[in-house]
Amino acid sequence: MNRVETLFWKNDRLFVLDQTRLPVEMVYVTCESYRDAAEVIRTMKVRGAPAIGAVAAFGLVLGALETGGDRETFLSGLELIAGELLGTRPTAVNLRWALERILSKAADTPGDAADLRRVLLAEAVAILREDVEANRRIGAYGNELVPDPARILTHCNAGALATAGYGTALGVVRAAREAGKRVKVFADETRPFMQGARLTTWELMCEGVEVVLLADSVAGYLMAQKDVDLVVVGADRVAANGDVANKIGTYGLAVLARAHGIPFYVAAPLSTIDPRTASGREIPIEERDPGELTHFCGRPIAPEGVSVWNPAFDVTPNALITALITDAGVLKPPFEESLRRVLGGGQEV
Amino acid sequence: MNRVETLFWKNDRLFVLDQTRLPVEMVYVTCESYRDAAEVIRTMKVRGAPAIGAVAAFGLVLGALETGGDRETFLSGLELIAGELLGTRPTAVNLRWALERILSKAADTPGDAADLRRVLLAEAVAILREDVEANRRIGAYGNELVPDPARILTHCNAGALATAGYGTALGVVRAAREAGKRVKVFADETRPFMQGARLTTWELMCEGVEVVLLADSVAGYLMAQKDVDLVVVGADRVAANGDVANKIGTYGLAVLARAHGIPFYVAAPLSTIDPRTASGREIPIEERDPGELTHFCGRPIAPEGVSVWNPAFDVTPNALITALITDAGVLKPPFEESLRRVLGGGQEV
Repeated sequence: MNRVETLFWKNDRLFVLDQTRLPVEMVYVTCESYRDAAEVIRTMKVRGAPAIGAVAAFGLVLGALETGGDRETFLSGLELIAGELLGTRPTAVNLRWALERILSKAADTPGDAADLRRVLLAEAVAILREDVEANRRIGAYGNELVPDPARILTHCNAGALATAGYGTALGVVRAAREAGKRVKVFADETRPFMQGARLTTWELMCEGVEVVLLADSVAGYLMAQKDVDLVVVGADRVAANGDVANKIGTYGLAVLARAHGIPFYVAAPLSTIDPRTASGREIPIEERDPGELTHFCGRPIAPEGVSVWNPAFDVTPNALITALITDAGVLKPPFEESLRRVLGGGQEV
Repeated sequence: MNRVETLFWKNDRLFVLDQTRLPVEMVYVTCESYRDAAEVIRTMKVRGAPAIGAVAAFGLVLGALETGGDRETFLSGLELIAGELLGTRPTAVNLRWALERILSKAADTPGDAADLRRVLLAEAVAILREDVEANRRIGAYGNELVPDPARILTHCNAGALATAGYGTALGVVRAAREAGKRVKVFADETRPFMQGARLTTWELMCEGVEVVLLADSVAGYLMAQKDVDLVVVGADRVAANGDVANKIGTYGLAVLARAHGIPFYVAAPLSTIDPRTASGREIPIEERDPGELTHFCGRPIAPEGVSVWNPAFDVTPNALITALITDAGVLKPPFEESLRRVLGGGQEV
């Protein structure tokens, strides 16, 4: 997977792997303007909280290339563009985190638009590089929690494709494999967008990891068969108290894991932790188009005009989470305290 | 829905509504031989335990029309055909129940092949009629458990389409509506075969019942929002101890319902109860083609060659079931005793 890049920057353009066409075709979308970047996020051609953050950062760099004027005009233009990018998807906090990091770099850097553009590009590149490094640390810490052999259930795709590379939940799987452990992954297909069926299976099969695809509703029966040693998922936002917003269905898995005495881990970089959100109740949950459920490949699979509720995420309360696997260590409950420590610059092991 | 018949018999042929083409088209498959009947069951053109039983009964009548010879030859031919029909799907016990009822009627009826054919057809017609009557009784008993207003979560399709008419779980919904209650139904889409998205929504919309379609993985989040008053599902087989085999995902829903303090009901006619199966551990769970998960409308949605686990059913242990709603009354735990009473001819209210 190191050869398949989720996104890359070349000749003042951003190239984003179109994940809606995987695993059938591998096609990169070229973003020539910040609006193109907003569009690939909105249409979920790229998804996964850290990957969205990275695309938004480069999107803002594209915006900087499209913006001129004196320093003040440039900076205020940049803020408007950041606002547009921020509006693409509400739940993943990495989007806001990345945009704020670029904006604050711009504010703190002296010079004119040309100077700033160079610095902002370097900052976006740093975000991309640091995300891979964070994922490798997540993998290393998470590996300590993985038995040998291990049967690991995951949901959605928290892999290389959801990040700048390596992955969070799948980073843990990769690190366990690299440590020589025998790992078998059960991948929920993850309706309605099929990230598990299309992306997680593909990533793991590319690396020869044993993976079994399941309908989402099979997870409970699988646990009842005692075929799961641990569950590990990613996150779109972790609140200050450790509540986790992640792909719809995560909460149900956490309840099932608890009922079966199976450890339930959430793997996420510090950029996914939002100290400004006190608890999961305050996390905005995106509701997506009913068409994701009523149609498939353009064909109707439900009666015309049916009512649909299509939340893209749910919230798992901290009490159901065994540990948070971050790039600053494995955090144990009470999460309010352990999160405060690592966000203050501390390290946990 | 009373006008839409799941199956009917006319001019020595069985007509079965092709549920794989709903809700887009309403097409009846004509079964001219028992092999046609076996095929509509195997390919899930008809599904739902009671409906499968009824189709099998008429399938055996078709077999009787194709079989000649003296009484002994005829009866042994019939047994072979019953064996073929029985082999189509392993989990739903109504299939075996209906075939045994027809075979035993044949054995108990004097006369030659021509006499028997007439009697067996009458028996199949009785099975069909009695199933609708059983469903209406299930509805009437179940209605007593439904508050007003009621938000009801259901899984798969246990409606008119799964039965000879009216439905089991949806029979409870219909009876509550007929009693004037304000009912809102949440329908899980039910991967991979989409019975909820395609059939339950359609049945309920035809009758103007408020219905909201959800991805299967949304159920937990819905319960956490306190938007569900009760869960009611059908059954493919109820063991003597009250363990229930039903569509994959039922077990997970039962665990979630328990975690949220929501009543979890199973609605099924006595023909779905199998006193010869002591507990859920002994119920054979059908595993279906991986293609149901890897392809959609003929298009690949997962990497070629991916491993798949595709169990069609799971087992919900009796401890998670609040009550069984049967045509002989609402059964409460301990189910081993309440089931023994009604199978012995008793009545519970």
